[in-house]
Amino acid sequence: MVRWEPGAQERLAAAALELYASRGFEQTTAADVAQAVGLTERTFFRYFADKREVLFAGQEHFQQVFLDGVAAAPDDAAPLEVVAFALRAAAAFFPDERRGHSRLRHSIISANPGLQERELFKMATLSDAIAGALRGRGVSEPQAVLAAGTGVTVFTVSYHRWLAPDEGRPLADVQAATFQDLRALAHA
Amino acid sequence: MVRWEPGAQERLAAAALELYASRGFEQTTAADVAQAVGLTERTFFRYFADKREVLFAGQEHFQQVFLDGVAAAPDDAAPLEVVAFALRAAAAFFPDERRGHSRLRHSIISANPGLQERELFKMATLSDAIAGALRGRGVSEPQAVLAAGTGVTVFTVSYHRWLAPDEGRPLADVQAATFQDLRALAHA
Repeated sequence: MVRWEPGAQERLAAAALELYASRGFEQTTAADVAQAVGLTERTFFRYFADKREVLFAGQEHFQQVFLDGVAAAPDDAAPLEVVAFALRAAAAFFPDERRGHSRLRHSIISANPGLQERELFKMATLSDAIAGALRGRGVSEPQAVLAAGTGVTVFTVSYHRWLAPDEGRPLADVQAATFQDLRALAHA
Repeated sequence: MVRWEPGAQERLAAAALELYASRGFEQTTAADVAQAVGLTERTFFRYFADKREVLFAGQEHFQQVFLDGVAAAPDDAAPLEVVAFALRAAAAFFPDERRGHSRLRHSIISANPGLQERELFKMATLSDAIAGALRGRGVSEPQAVLAAGTGVTVFTVSYHRWLAPDEGRPLADVQAATFQDLRALAHA
């Protein structure tokens, strides 16, 4: 019988992050993670399909935050402006208090090609979802996929800048600067 | 003892593509592929690390084509102009005679999330390489990663348009149109 454990998922996720970072992702088993917080491997698998998914829990919520941003944009906003709304909404998902956690997660993913592939798939799925939302607003192709892809590039570049050790600005500010850089590049 | 087989790699690759498309990637083994062209599984593994890699052979050459394009751009070209040079060079890698093969490969990859992840990793690796080449030309950050990422988005959107059943234009023309769309989006 599997008992309900208050906060088990959060405790498992926190322990996993710590172990993946200190021992390495490959060197850590689901049993190691469970043991670190006094739970069983079976309980681990109640919450996560595999040890990779610990790093990707909440992906649907993450995506929804961008889509809510798209929905909040004025009807007459141009496609890249709509995408900018999505990114501003996403910035609220990454407050400065979360930067340490995001840096740790990023360092784990960067050290493992399989995790990098999974992260890229997550971002490609996000791009597809934003493109779909743009089409739903009447944006035609290829403008919808192009605006979505460009938006995800701006997000990714900004997010990596935000994670850099010497970066102190909030993500929303970094994104605004990156959008400016993009417009400058396109005008050159 | 493994004998040298003339054209073995090409024959294996062609048979793999056909079997992955007809039976499904998961349902096809390396032994099936080898058998289809009268070779042994052992010979298959002389040429390919695993059955996934059949679809990604030539990645280094693919990347080099873009980098040669970057190198061919005039010294005073703006970053996105340099990226446009890279894409034009890449278009030569995908002549119209190759469209059928590319469509088949794309249909196999689209049907399998693991292959999609691998393809995304290939494109991210390409983006990193182009960003590195831009930095080598004196482009600073974040302009280098942003221009490279935007260029790969333009390439990917164009490549998918080029593969569409109703698309007849050469890849270079589709890319030029997509670059125009991007500039229009950025100016709106």
